[in-house]
Amino acid sequence: MTAPLHEVHPTGSGRRLPDTQQGMRRRNLSRVMHTVNAEGPLSRAAVASRIGLTRAAVSTLVDELIRSGLLEELGPERPGRVGRPGSALAISGHGPAGIGAEVGVDHLAVCAVDLRGEVRARAVRHGTNRGRPPEPVIQELTTLIRQVIAEAEREGLWPAGLAVAVPGLVARDARTVVRAPNLGWHDTDLGALLPGELPLAVDNEANFGGLAELWLGEGTPRDFLHVSAEIGIGAAVLVDGGLLRGTRGFAGELGHVPIHPEGPECPCGGRGCLEQYAGEEAVLRAAGLEPGEDRVGLLAQRAAQGDTEVRRALREAGTALGIALTGAVNLLDPETVVLGGALSGLAPWLLPSLEGELARRTAGPACAVSVSRLGPEGPLLGAAHSVVRAVLDDPAGAASRA
Amino acid sequence: MTAPLHEVHPTGSGRRLPDTQQGMRRRNLSRVMHTVNAEGPLSRAAVASRIGLTRAAVSTLVDELIRSGLLEELGPERPGRVGRPGSALAISGHGPAGIGAEVGVDHLAVCAVDLRGEVRARAVRHGTNRGRPPEPVIQELTTLIRQVIAEAEREGLWPAGLAVAVPGLVARDARTVVRAPNLGWHDTDLGALLPGELPLAVDNEANFGGLAELWLGEGTPRDFLHVSAEIGIGAAVLVDGGLLRGTRGFAGELGHVPIHPEGPECPCGGRGCLEQYAGEEAVLRAAGLEPGEDRVGLLAQRAAQGDTEVRRALREAGTALGIALTGAVNLLDPETVVLGGALSGLAPWLLPSLEGELARRTAGPACAVSVSRLGPEGPLLGAAHSVVRAVLDDPAGAASRA
Repeated sequence: MTAPLHEVHPTGSGRRLPDTQQGMRRRNLSRVMHTVNAEGPLSRAAVASRIGLTRAAVSTLVDELIRSGLLEELGPERPGRVGRPGSALAISGHGPAGIGAEVGVDHLAVCAVDLRGEVRARAVRHGTNRGRPPEPVIQELTTLIRQVIAEAEREGLWPAGLAVAVPGLVARDARTVVRAPNLGWHDTDLGALLPGELPLAVDNEANFGGLAELWLGEGTPRDFLHVSAEIGIGAAVLVDGGLLRGTRGFAGELGHVPIHPEGPECPCGGRGCLEQYAGEEAVLRAAGLEPGEDRVGLLAQRAAQGDTEVRRALREAGTALGIALTGAVNLLDPETVVLGGALSGLAPWLLPSLEGELARRTAGPACAVSVSRLGPEGPLLGAAHSVVRAVLDDPAGAASRA
Repeated sequence: MTAPLHEVHPTGSGRRLPDTQQGMRRRNLSRVMHTVNAEGPLSRAAVASRIGLTRAAVSTLVDELIRSGLLEELGPERPGRVGRPGSALAISGHGPAGIGAEVGVDHLAVCAVDLRGEVRARAVRHGTNRGRPPEPVIQELTTLIRQVIAEAEREGLWPAGLAVAVPGLVARDARTVVRAPNLGWHDTDLGALLPGELPLAVDNEANFGGLAELWLGEGTPRDFLHVSAEIGIGAAVLVDGGLLRGTRGFAGELGHVPIHPEGPECPCGGRGCLEQYAGEEAVLRAAGLEPGEDRVGLLAQRAAQGDTEVRRALREAGTALGIALTGAVNLLDPETVVLGGALSGLAPWLLPSLEGELARRTAGPACAVSVSRLGPEGPLLGAAHSVVRAVLDDPAGAASRA
């Protein structure tokens, strides 16, 4: 294999590849992919000029990426221009796909996203998973995963990896669910239950939601706090475009920040945690509603209809979120706070009191709060895109698994 | 200048130098310095084998470092061994020095630390700075800085940079004190007031305290939360051996985490902030004592004598710290919490309730809490050592300023 002699760093790459000649080649493959992804379609010459390598070096890299199915040629580019027409390169829509999966408290979902970022296949099963043991749940999820992979393969894609979002704490091995109180799971090695043939990454749903916001949100900064909720309340702490994971992988547990230290007991062992005031079940209780399956939909519908009890309950949840976020903003100084997941659908009724609390408790200008457009789709999309990003960051690694 | 062809990364370097041939030479100079610093005295051959360069390449680098006064030769090493005796290399005690300075509410302090980490000169002035304008305070500090530099120069050292710790929020320009409520300063450009001939970095005292703990503490992990207090309460968030600074540079404001949301008003604009319960003045008030100059000394003395009011006040402060730290630990998942600064002297009376609160509010094993051995010296030492670390990380940059 020919290796170019110049070393160039990939843009947008989270990982740093090893500092050998082989590592240089892999970094340059990544640089080509990221450049075509950001600015394509582009000719070989245009790629070469953008990344500062010779046209010959870039051609060697591009040929390898085309052979692996990661790039494709669209045919002659801008034929009216002077000189031999270059063939325009684009990210392939028939190469690797990222398989994202989500274990929700009330649903399972799987999707396949191609390297261009398009969702190409999808499957969902509704029904509660609360209190069910991991084995049958993951067996059902595996059925959906196999359906989605089969559908993607019919479209000419092949699965490059599987990423699974779960509503709980995940160890840094990216396999073990240490604690998912709303499912009733603890110390569960999902790696042993999921299909073994694909590279696997299990992560907290708030983390994948935060990454989705970073990658797919409009104008998202590189330092922000992403707050999301399913039954629990979680946060993803993004620092300079990377996730802050914590020593054990448990960072971002905003739902267990104490906001009234002598408040009600929380299953986490604490008292007066945010989740006791702003979690879905606390809000339903405060609004005098029964927990059903589409809890957020019910709250949004009633609030939109002007139900004063529901509006009051959401206002108080916003206040509680504002108190916890004041602490988080003081500790982390993010550029913005983004409300994602289920919270995004309730934002119209949460935001006034939430922002009011942040403003009232902050001497300077309060931290800006925005609402995710991805909403409840965030974690699933974040999971699938994490596989796609891994391919862009190390195309050679993905090709070797093809 | 000859440049070696192999590229090697410096160990412990926070900054990444540019990826050019010149950058490689600078990284390799750093690698040599870090290796001798960690394991020296070492022969040239030993350095070469540890960093994977040829003996000839290392000799070129070492000669340059000796010429710049950063390394020195101790003479023949272990003469009893077979072969031509190598001359042992050591970090110079006569080269660059880091000048650290601290603006405290009740004192000014300056020290010079050599590349070996030894404090070689020091000057302190006691007396309150509260409510004094920045100009006369910085003028006095500058007098101390010039004294310390003169003393260091008499010892054969030269100042490589100046780092100043302040009890307030510092902008990311590392010059501007945005807000130091206990001094009464705001939007003050210290760069315009301090000696202009040295590279300057101004930072929050909690940040320098945290860095001191990282660099000088025994067995300090790379992910921890360093909590310190002078009048205010601040924290440094260390993530993978680096400071989390936040978008504006304001991260770590643990003192303004709300712990009783409807508690007393705080000058920050909030209510019921931690500082209202565990700040020095709150504790003195709770203990029925008058704020004087050596507030921490007074509290420690009374507590050691068994004064029940003081002990109760410190116990309650520990509880308040425990509540705020529960939130911080849930958000950040650090490996440990380190009590530094003035808090370290009061640890015997704060720790039981602080640790009790953390344990009571945490389902799993509570985050370990330890006490800094550096105590109130941390910020000053951290400031001086930050200059020393910058020299080790980029010896060529320091030499060019010699």
